[in-house]
Amino acid sequence: MTSPSISRYPVPKLDDLPEDIRARMLEVQEKAGFIPNVFVALAHRPDEFRAFFAYHDALMLRDSGLTKAEREMIVVAVAGANDCLYCFVAHGAILRIYAKNPLVADQVGVNYRKADITPRQRAMLAFALKVAERSGEIDETDYATLREHGFDDEDIWDIGNISAFFCLSNRMANLISLRPNDEFYLLGRVPKQK
Amino acid sequence: MTSPSISRYPVPKLDDLPEDIRARMLEVQEKAGFIPNVFVALAHRPDEFRAFFAYHDALMLRDSGLTKAEREMIVVAVAGANDCLYCFVAHGAILRIYAKNPLVADQVGVNYRKADITPRQRAMLAFALKVAERSGEIDETDYATLREHGFDDEDIWDIGNISAFFCLSNRMANLISLRPNDEFYLLGRVPKQK
Amino acid sequence: MTSPSISRYPVPKLDDLPEDIRARMLEVQEKAGFIPNVFVALAHRPDEFRAFFAYHDALMLRDSGLTKAEREMIVVAVAGANDCLYCFVAHGAILRIYAKNPLVADQVGVNYRKADITPRQRAMLAFALKVAERSGEIDETDYATLREHGFDDEDIWDIGNISAFFCLSNRMANLISLRPNDEFYLLGRVPKQK
Amino acid sequence: MTSPSISRYPVPKLDDLPEDIRARMLEVQEKAGFIPNVFVALAHRPDEFRAFFAYHDALMLRDSGLTKAEREMIVVAVAGANDCLYCFVAHGAILRIYAKNPLVADQVGVNYRKADITPRQRAMLAFALKVAERSGEIDETDYATLREHGFDDEDIWDIGNISAFFCLSNRMANLISLRPNDEFYLLGRVPKQK
Amino acid sequence: MTSPSISRYPVPKLDDLPEDIRARMLEVQEKAGFIPNVFVALAHRPDEFRAFFAYHDALMLRDSGLTKAEREMIVVAVAGANDCLYCFVAHGAILRIYAKNPLVADQVGVNYRKADITPRQRAMLAFALKVAERSGEIDETDYATLREHGFDDEDIWDIGNISAFFCLSNRMANLISLRPNDEFYLLGRVPKQK
Amino acid sequence: MTSPSISRYPVPKLDDLPEDIRARMLEVQEKAGFIPNVFVALAHRPDEFRAFFAYHDALMLRDSGLTKAEREMIVVAVAGANDCLYCFVAHGAILRIYAKNPLVADQVGVNYRKADITPRQRAMLAFALKVAERSGEIDETDYATLREHGFDDEDIWDIGNISAFFCLSNRMANLISLRPNDEFYLLGRVPKQK
Repeated sequence: MTSPSISRYPVPKLDDLPEDIRARMLEVQEKAGFIPNVFVALAHRPDEFRAFFAYHDALMLRDSGLTKAEREMIVVAVAGANDCLYCFVAHGAILRIYAKNPLVADQVGVNYRKADITPRQRAMLAFALKVAERSGEIDETDYATLREHGFDDEDIWDIGNISAFFCLSNRMANLISLRPNDEFYLLGRVPKQK
Repeated sequence: MTSPSISRYPVPKLDDLPEDIRARMLEVQEKAGFIPNVFVALAHRPDEFRAFFAYHDALMLRDSGLTKAEREMIVVAVAGANDCLYCFVAHGAILRIYAKNPLVADQVGVNYRKADITPRQRAMLAFALKVAERSGEIDETDYATLREHGFDDEDIWDIGNISAFFCLSNRMANLISLRPNDEFYLLGRVPKQK
Repeated sequence: MTSPSISRYPVPKLDDLPEDIRARMLEVQEKAGFIPNVFVALAHRPDEFRAFFAYHDALMLRDSGLTKAEREMIVVAVAGANDCLYCFVAHGAILRIYAKNPLVADQVGVNYRKADITPRQRAMLAFALKVAERSGEIDETDYATLREHGFDDEDIWDIGNISAFFCLSNRMANLISLRPNDEFYLLGRVPKQK
Repeated sequence: MTSPSISRYPVPKLDDLPEDIRARMLEVQEKAGFIPNVFVALAHRPDEFRAFFAYHDALMLRDSGLTKAEREMIVVAVAGANDCLYCFVAHGAILRIYAKNPLVADQVGVNYRKADITPRQRAMLAFALKVAERSGEIDETDYATLREHGFDDEDIWDIGNISAFFCLSNRMANLISLRPNDEFYLLGRVPKQK
Repeated sequence: MTSPSISRYPVPKLDDLPEDIRARMLEVQEKAGFIPNVFVALAHRPDEFRAFFAYHDALMLRDSGLTKAEREMIVVAVAGANDCLYCFVAHGAILRIYAKNPLVADQVGVNYRKADITPRQRAMLAFALKVAERSGEIDETDYATLREHGFDDEDIWDIGNISAFFCLSNRMANLISLRPNDEFYLLGRVPKQK
Repeated sequence: MTSPSISRYPVPKLDDLPEDIRARMLEVQEKAGFIPNVFVALAHRPDEFRAFFAYHDALMLRDSGLTKAEREMIVVAVAGANDCLYCFVAHGAILRIYAKNPLVADQVGVNYRKADITPRQRAMLAFALKVAERSGEIDETDYATLREHGFDDEDIWDIGNISAFFCLSNRMANLISLRPNDEFYLLGRVPKQK
């Protein structure tokens, strides 16, 4: 059996890639043990690749009132809303690792109302989904609700922009039929043995 | 930390249950190693419990043109459409085991169009979701499409009734906020070692 | 002109049926004067028939904080939401009879907000429709609202489970194109003469 | 018990009405045996009353490739889609009378796909509902489909304009909470005795 | 290049029109400098033309608690919701002129929440869109909200009926593919020079 | 009267900005005569600003099988679908200028089916809106349809990614309540005089 394709589009060979993109891939490979398919597939267009990951890093690595696990919760909840298999599975793995919780990703991805999270996190996800699904209806009452849960305006920008960025990302994954690496499905589900 | 509740409703003790219901629970415990929470939670109402599982068994255990794995695919796809965490997680585990495939449950639950399944199975799931979401629009063209994929009318009844039954089940799980057993999240993801 | 078919599937002859199913049919015929088509059509699959009516009876005949008319209101409102002709017409008749009100079935089936019912009943139907249409969004505020109208948690289970059960029933009726008996359309509309 | 109100707005007394409006009411009373509430409620604004019924008559009384029963089918199907109790019930009665068929109104109002009508009439209602629900998506393929069923362009205007007019009418009835006369519920359901 | 057609239907010549309809057209031409295509296209059916404009005038010219600009805001917002190019463009022009504001029409048509309007006008448009999109759900709380903003019941009728009338109008424009006159796009955007 | 704010968030002064961002603003000001508010508002977060415009330029300035006007058509149609006033108005202006057509932006933004565009462009916009609204349902038939209109796979990536990028952009504009510069409303509507 041939291995299933990871994208509707041609996938560049590592050796043919611009140096900066190759370096980024090797770096993530070093860290994760494999290269997530989103890197390989988006490298088909180097300029868009660079902008995509620059945006990603600006949002996901910045100092923020949101923890890294909370940011990944947003990603997984939005992936569920957008029927995006890649982000549901890949960011589900990252969420499980950051949260050190093997259950929370499936919970948040399928129905955040049933998840083992705080009321503050539930408010965060409710807003993230409003940004994803009905952003034209956002108004001051949404800001007020989030402030009551202790979010400041920069936190709200973070929630909104992470949701918005993954609305882009989910659509690209669906467009090119991006396949999650098999490794992601199991990551973070089994406690590390010592 | 107290353990999270498995239902909005009181959960009966095993010893207080009618004999037939207790027997059923012990049987499933013997087989699975634990008692799935749906048994415990629905036992709050014995008559409904009996009818629920009688219906379940009539559909899921009968001789059918659908394999058991295919029937679980329907359950997981419908759970995704209905935002039902319990069935997504619990039947995802069963699907992984029946299909001997650690990836297919997440694929089918999030977006069956991206799943490693056959065109025939994709047609089956498209119809199951139409039954779940727009059953009033079913007409002869749906039957014709399924027949082209080799399903006969009894198979179509099976697809439709499994979808319909889990539309009931998903709503009950959401109503009572039924919590999946932690065990389900990992089941079928790691190949059995010998 | 040939009589229109009552189901997409073969309809068993009374004499060919298992004894318990035939007995149930004769019992309802005795009471209603005719056999509702749902009995005839579902008898195509005896095990599912038995489970279906066991579930139906467990919900609709049990002692409950809801009157029998209120339970039928739920059925008719849910049938309207699911575009299910059979349940709209057949349970519309039953509702008219139980409520001794020739108008309420059409009112509740088309738009319960315009019906001659109490505010408590309106809250009941609003929740039943949420279970039917957006069960994933049910949360504690829904329970609180219903408790304010005097429903206890067992009543809420009844409302939710009746709605969920007829979400199954409506989908089956749409799947098999179940035809309402002509008799149902008029039943309960004309006051009995003495 | 006080009689339920027929409109959220004040209802004029017959004697206070402009002569032409009163004449119209007496004319319909002569014919139907009672004055439908839409006349009484809309008379609150005489100019709008006159325009409303002029439009109604232009569409419903003109020579057309659609029979009067077919035009009422459109009205009832659109009322179902718009959750408009008044038009569902009142025009349901008119449809039963024109079609000399006690069943067709409920069928068409709940789910026209299950109704005892011709394929041509089903195509007519599918288009009427598209005009009601997604008119922005109408294109040449819709016209082509209807022409294949023997409708000419003037017939298509009729279908579309009747649907559009009752989209206005349904919204007004919902706005003012217009109550159907009790008489409508039974009209046309019982064959006239001789 | 041939000029694009203004309607899917034949357009009558001015000389062939009934006298009253021709007079109306000449009157509007005198005032606007051109004949809006809605007049030309609807004149295909004189009786419907007369009723349409009688209704229009009854709503848009009457004494009302709503200014003329506010009434046009409703029209433009509803046109946006119904994807109706003709009314968006033509009534956008009229709104700009009445409001003496070159920006407000695009704002209200695309997303009234972002428009330079008062909170009272925002409440008015929220209700107009509810009438357009979910009129079956209107209830007393909607009336209460509008009354808090200073609208009386006759104003609410105006808001609702204007919305409902243009739901008819938008559907007709979409049905016949009515083309806005080129002139409308620019009207009211450039301050009159002296 | 104070000038309306252009963003819910603080807007940096030109002098306080990093050199590269200021240079970009001065460059666009030189070209357009004013600084579009999206530059000013997003400069609140320099890293996200840089990634946003790098992505924008990678898509909108690259060699492509789509003309620049066609790319702006996608932006305006998607803005309409997402109720995004900023992109509807600002990119509407750019589209009018690129297409040298004062009408096409409003047409495409309100209902592309009524626009003066080619069948190929209509297919392009239908797909762009599917990416925006239902990207999970994209499959091979969508690719086949576009190929029939002469688009190759790189063109399809362009269509999809532009739609996806502006789904991000529209959500950010709605999140921060980004106000279009007044200048955009009129740009490209009046032929340049010589």
